[in-house]
Amino acid sequence: MSSSFGTVFKATTFGESHCAGVGVVVDGCPPRLPLTEADVQRQLDRRRPGQSRLSTDRNETDTVRILSGTENGLTLGTPIALLVPNRDQRPADYASMQQAPRPSHADYTYQMKYGIRAASGGGRSSARETLARVAAGTVAEKLLRERFGVEIVAWVGAVGDVDAPEVDVLTVDRAGVDRFDVRCPHAESAGRMMAEIARVKAASDSVGGVVACVCRNAPAGWGEPVFGKTEALLAQAMLSIPATKGFEIGSGFAGARMRGSTHNDPFVGKAGRLGTLTNRSGGVQGGITNGEPIVFRVAFKPPATIGQAQATVDFDGAPVTFEARGRHDPCVVPRAVPIVESMAALVLADLALIQSTRK
Amino acid sequence: MSSSFGTVFKATTFGESHCAGVGVVVDGCPPRLPLTEADVQRQLDRRRPGQSRLSTDRNETDTVRILSGTENGLTLGTPIALLVPNRDQRPADYASMQQAPRPSHADYTYQMKYGIRAASGGGRSSARETLARVAAGTVAEKLLRERFGVEIVAWVGAVGDVDAPEVDVLTVDRAGVDRFDVRCPHAESAGRMMAEIARVKAASDSVGGVVACVCRNAPAGWGEPVFGKTEALLAQAMLSIPATKGFEIGSGFAGARMRGSTHNDPFVGKAGRLGTLTNRSGGVQGGITNGEPIVFRVAFKPPATIGQAQATVDFDGAPVTFEARGRHDPCVVPRAVPIVESMAALVLADLALIQSTRK
Amino acid sequence: MSSSFGTVFKATTFGESHCAGVGVVVDGCPPRLPLTEADVQRQLDRRRPGQSRLSTDRNETDTVRILSGTENGLTLGTPIALLVPNRDQRPADYASMQQAPRPSHADYTYQMKYGIRAASGGGRSSARETLARVAAGTVAEKLLRERFGVEIVAWVGAVGDVDAPEVDVLTVDRAGVDRFDVRCPHAESAGRMMAEIARVKAASDSVGGVVACVCRNAPAGWGEPVFGKTEALLAQAMLSIPATKGFEIGSGFAGARMRGSTHNDPFVGKAGRLGTLTNRSGGVQGGITNGEPIVFRVAFKPPATIGQAQATVDFDGAPVTFEARGRHDPCVVPRAVPIVESMAALVLADLALIQSTRK
Amino acid sequence: MSSSFGTVFKATTFGESHCAGVGVVVDGCPPRLPLTEADVQRQLDRRRPGQSRLSTDRNETDTVRILSGTENGLTLGTPIALLVPNRDQRPADYASMQQAPRPSHADYTYQMKYGIRAASGGGRSSARETLARVAAGTVAEKLLRERFGVEIVAWVGAVGDVDAPEVDVLTVDRAGVDRFDVRCPHAESAGRMMAEIARVKAASDSVGGVVACVCRNAPAGWGEPVFGKTEALLAQAMLSIPATKGFEIGSGFAGARMRGSTHNDPFVGKAGRLGTLTNRSGGVQGGITNGEPIVFRVAFKPPATIGQAQATVDFDGAPVTFEARGRHDPCVVPRAVPIVESMAALVLADLALIQSTRK
Repeated sequence: MSSSFGTVFKATTFGESHCAGVGVVVDGCPPRLPLTEADVQRQLDRRRPGQSRLSTDRNETDTVRILSGTENGLTLGTPIALLVPNRDQRPADYASMQQAPRPSHADYTYQMKYGIRAASGGGRSSARETLARVAAGTVAEKLLRERFGVEIVAWVGAVGDVDAPEVDVLTVDRAGVDRFDVRCPHAESAGRMMAEIARVKAASDSVGGVVACVCRNAPAGWGEPVFGKTEALLAQAMLSIPATKGFEIGSGFAGARMRGSTHNDPFVGKAGRLGTLTNRSGGVQGGITNGEPIVFRVAFKPPATIGQAQATVDFDGAPVTFEARGRHDPCVVPRAVPIVESMAALVLADLALIQSTRK
Repeated sequence: MSSSFGTVFKATTFGESHCAGVGVVVDGCPPRLPLTEADVQRQLDRRRPGQSRLSTDRNETDTVRILSGTENGLTLGTPIALLVPNRDQRPADYASMQQAPRPSHADYTYQMKYGIRAASGGGRSSARETLARVAAGTVAEKLLRERFGVEIVAWVGAVGDVDAPEVDVLTVDRAGVDRFDVRCPHAESAGRMMAEIARVKAASDSVGGVVACVCRNAPAGWGEPVFGKTEALLAQAMLSIPATKGFEIGSGFAGARMRGSTHNDPFVGKAGRLGTLTNRSGGVQGGITNGEPIVFRVAFKPPATIGQAQATVDFDGAPVTFEARGRHDPCVVPRAVPIVESMAALVLADLALIQSTRK
Repeated sequence: MSSSFGTVFKATTFGESHCAGVGVVVDGCPPRLPLTEADVQRQLDRRRPGQSRLSTDRNETDTVRILSGTENGLTLGTPIALLVPNRDQRPADYASMQQAPRPSHADYTYQMKYGIRAASGGGRSSARETLARVAAGTVAEKLLRERFGVEIVAWVGAVGDVDAPEVDVLTVDRAGVDRFDVRCPHAESAGRMMAEIARVKAASDSVGGVVACVCRNAPAGWGEPVFGKTEALLAQAMLSIPATKGFEIGSGFAGARMRGSTHNDPFVGKAGRLGTLTNRSGGVQGGITNGEPIVFRVAFKPPATIGQAQATVDFDGAPVTFEARGRHDPCVVPRAVPIVESMAALVLADLALIQSTRK
Repeated sequence: MSSSFGTVFKATTFGESHCAGVGVVVDGCPPRLPLTEADVQRQLDRRRPGQSRLSTDRNETDTVRILSGTENGLTLGTPIALLVPNRDQRPADYASMQQAPRPSHADYTYQMKYGIRAASGGGRSSARETLARVAAGTVAEKLLRERFGVEIVAWVGAVGDVDAPEVDVLTVDRAGVDRFDVRCPHAESAGRMMAEIARVKAASDSVGGVVACVCRNAPAGWGEPVFGKTEALLAQAMLSIPATKGFEIGSGFAGARMRGSTHNDPFVGKAGRLGTLTNRSGGVQGGITNGEPIVFRVAFKPPATIGQAQATVDFDGAPVTFEARGRHDPCVVPRAVPIVESMAALVLADLALIQSTRK
């Protein structure tokens, strides 16, 4: 269950690391929206491992195919099925995992949940599953951009202890983000982050980080009261991404330390609408967008797969030393950037369509 | 929309501040579970304002009534409707809000979303709506405790800059939490927190804080892959509570600064099952519970309603000075403790029932 | 579970015969729609038993109260909770049911499903549950009429072997339907139906019947492909009403006997749009409305509760003679008319709002 | 929207006639269930056109591929994606439809709904879409048979005016049904039905019919009160199949003519449980299964595509003569048999899993 996300604009994903493919069915996308495989491929390529020396060497082509829902480059209004075949299947690499559950991986929990597990261990918890989210997210982004003018840009805000300074959320764009492999738009921080990742890689270790994101031009009025608040759905969306441990919007955890007199965002007139002078709310009030940029941050833990030997126990509780073989990423946050953007797009596309039922 | 939460154990809430009442329909609760109004009332009373000098003076009785779904103190398996009538309705207090949207409140966003708003301003964004969550949550807690042995305890981890030291998540209980009005189980911190709240109140200001929570004895195997991960649903649940700005599970944002070699939780044998030596994962791996305590933290911003005059604009953009009248809480986190527990209970009750379909 | 109906315009009902009340939460209704308790009461009164000599003597007032979601006679866009308190509770009448499950009632199946059952026997299968549907349906009807000009009219098409002739679906209205207690707009048939019901009542027996319904002025384009086809949702809606055994749309079962050359509805020009010359399709093609009247029929079995002694067995399988005491209706179809209208309104209101996401 | 069916056992379908393929994602299927492509293929082959002289000549191979969710012939508990590639795409045949909407087809309604339509006309209303239902249904059937012992058998009960006599619902099986191309297990009726279809085909016409179905060995207690009644979900499931116009369960429309004294099903002891002497209820009471066979019937209209010229109008309202080219079936009911079985399986698998949450 729960391979579906959204109420009106709904994505249903499928696929493990080592089956025939990973894919998604997008139901509820409005008709007559231009959509081609190239639109989807562009963002998938940003997520792909092996695109720089920062990432795993696994060479996946990850070519998406639109199976249904479009004709002559336009959506039909019917379900859009997108498939990325798995090509590079090396189940042999995973043989050693069969004996012992990998520390901080999902091998153990999948086994306990299902009484069975895929050869690759954690089944749907694999990073490869995120391909389907990005594919669906590009469709959502297309809708948001073309029909509502909404722009979504994410970037790396921290790698380990290297924090980038605040970014101008009104101007940051993907070209600026992609200027450096580490996807931090601040040049000096990007350099220090890349150095940190190199150090970690040399130490056969891994490191965590933070991805920040802004959604611009969403009008006031999106988001559903109570359980469907914009920030609630964004939080669910982000914490559903593998390796995430935290989410904050606007002032976030720092806001918990503040007083109301400095935290409140006074209203001001802005080009024929009301805006706010500051944006500690992060673009939402009472769960509903207020027209200001939606700004949030997502914490990613260090990848569990490291090159060092780890003392753990096997499925029977007997002590073993676990040593990972195969490919692994020392830091996932650069690749997580398009995933965060895609999940944000899925949230906003759904809220935009739901709001259209109020007219 | 989105006044419902859950897939099998489903809560649907209703009610504004100044209508006839606030309530909830709980559908999917298994039959033959002992449940009385007293069970629900106990937790509602912990949420009630006016219970200590820390909180607003508003004197609400908040007496719950079970409208359906039980007979002779047992659930029937049919929908359980719970109603808390509104008694203390003073819409006059809100007259001044009609002219200008209160800063960092939902008056403006509700107006933009619906083209209409309740006299009280932010409609369903009011703190009073949380009564329905707590009522539903007590039913979920009953199920979790009686059928699965699960215990949920939340406490105040920080008020403004006053941070409590780490709490022993294996032993903390509600009696210990309730020993102090501020609901921090650490005596010395509780004292400092209460002093801080008194200072803030004296300054006609408000202050934020952090609520921490542990869910104990959940077996390994709860939580749904991909979008229904335990932490994803907890994040949605928590960020749906008014005034929340952040969520983190296990190592959280601090985990983003760590390396894999120190972050990973090695497995160990524990009384006939596998456990982990450390718990940076926070009780979940790949979104599925691993049998360790589920530990998370929620950031609350300072309440937007303060006694100080604020420079803002009215709905037409004309500058006004806004000064709140009526009752307001300088710090919501002590009262948020049972709300956080209730939302956690709703998440886990649903996941527990979904997992029972796998047998 | 499954006390909810609809995706965007969603009704969640609660309540048994002998608890505090029966009610519904309507979520997703657009804001600024005029709605008062009188609007709801009018249709509830049409459903009420004891309104004529054809029906049970049970004297229920069935007064609805709006608990939330409106202010000054307008919907706020927030959940509308409607409650009908139970006043006339006589659980003693049901004592004899405790020993043996009533034939063709839900006492046995509820006991097997839940391992417990309400004093009244079949819990949520009671006719009283339909109050909540009618209350929700009046809100849906208000939306359909005011925003889309849609009109829904149902009538009794048959009582036992008494079939009314075809009714003009373009002109039949509620005033005409209500002219006779039996709610058949054809005077001569109405007379024969009432005579049949009197005969059945005199024989301490009951009789089935058919309710027909038309929904006029729905534009072309409502209804969702595949599982959300208009006729599929209408079929679910109708078969969810107690005592229903069949549903047909357009040509229905008679259409199964026809050839394509006579069954097909040729298109013709109609006042600036396409229409069809005949309407064997019943207003839908491929599950989507085509602008013609939506016409369907619902079969109701005879009520299970009859005054005659019945040979059956008790819960342990021992032979007993069952004799019903208390109140019972010899024929439910006249009272079912507003229930059918209400369920049709719930279906169309939801489809109308979903279609608005395509613009 | 609404390409998904089910709450816990959930199928999401995709695909038009002339895109890359038709498929389904089955989410919520329990783990460790044996499942291979051959299991699915067997039932798909029963649905295939071109398998006998009764049906269209279109030669489709319809070979299914499992894309995800199984390993070594066992389900993993993760989403099972099934794809049937489209091979025989001849969009040219459909060129003439572009000018005028085919009478009683969905060309017009799709155009009005989406403002665009697939080259093939009615997009998702095509018979080819049912491939995905059958694929999903075989997974559901596997679960029902292996875990619950449930058997589902459908057959042709009528073709045009040729009605088969009552079938013994306790013994009818698929081998008996498949003995004749027309899929009526009664030899003499089968002969007359085939003669009728031959006549209709010779006349370049089409004819409707009825499919009957029995589900055996479902225990008492499946089905959800109110909107999720067994018969309500079966009705939705059946009316969602293309070309259906009616559904009845147990006594159905004939029951509307009966009196309660003859319609009621008295309880009797049956091998350690309660059963009923008669089965006019059709295996359900109050929407919940009572342990008796679930028996229902589905009306199919004659296919809209016929070889005769039809007077209609084009999209602009100008009179045209429409003459279908390409392949078409004179009677769909024989091929509808596995589709009805599959939809019934989807309903019951979901209800079975939901009921397991009550333990």
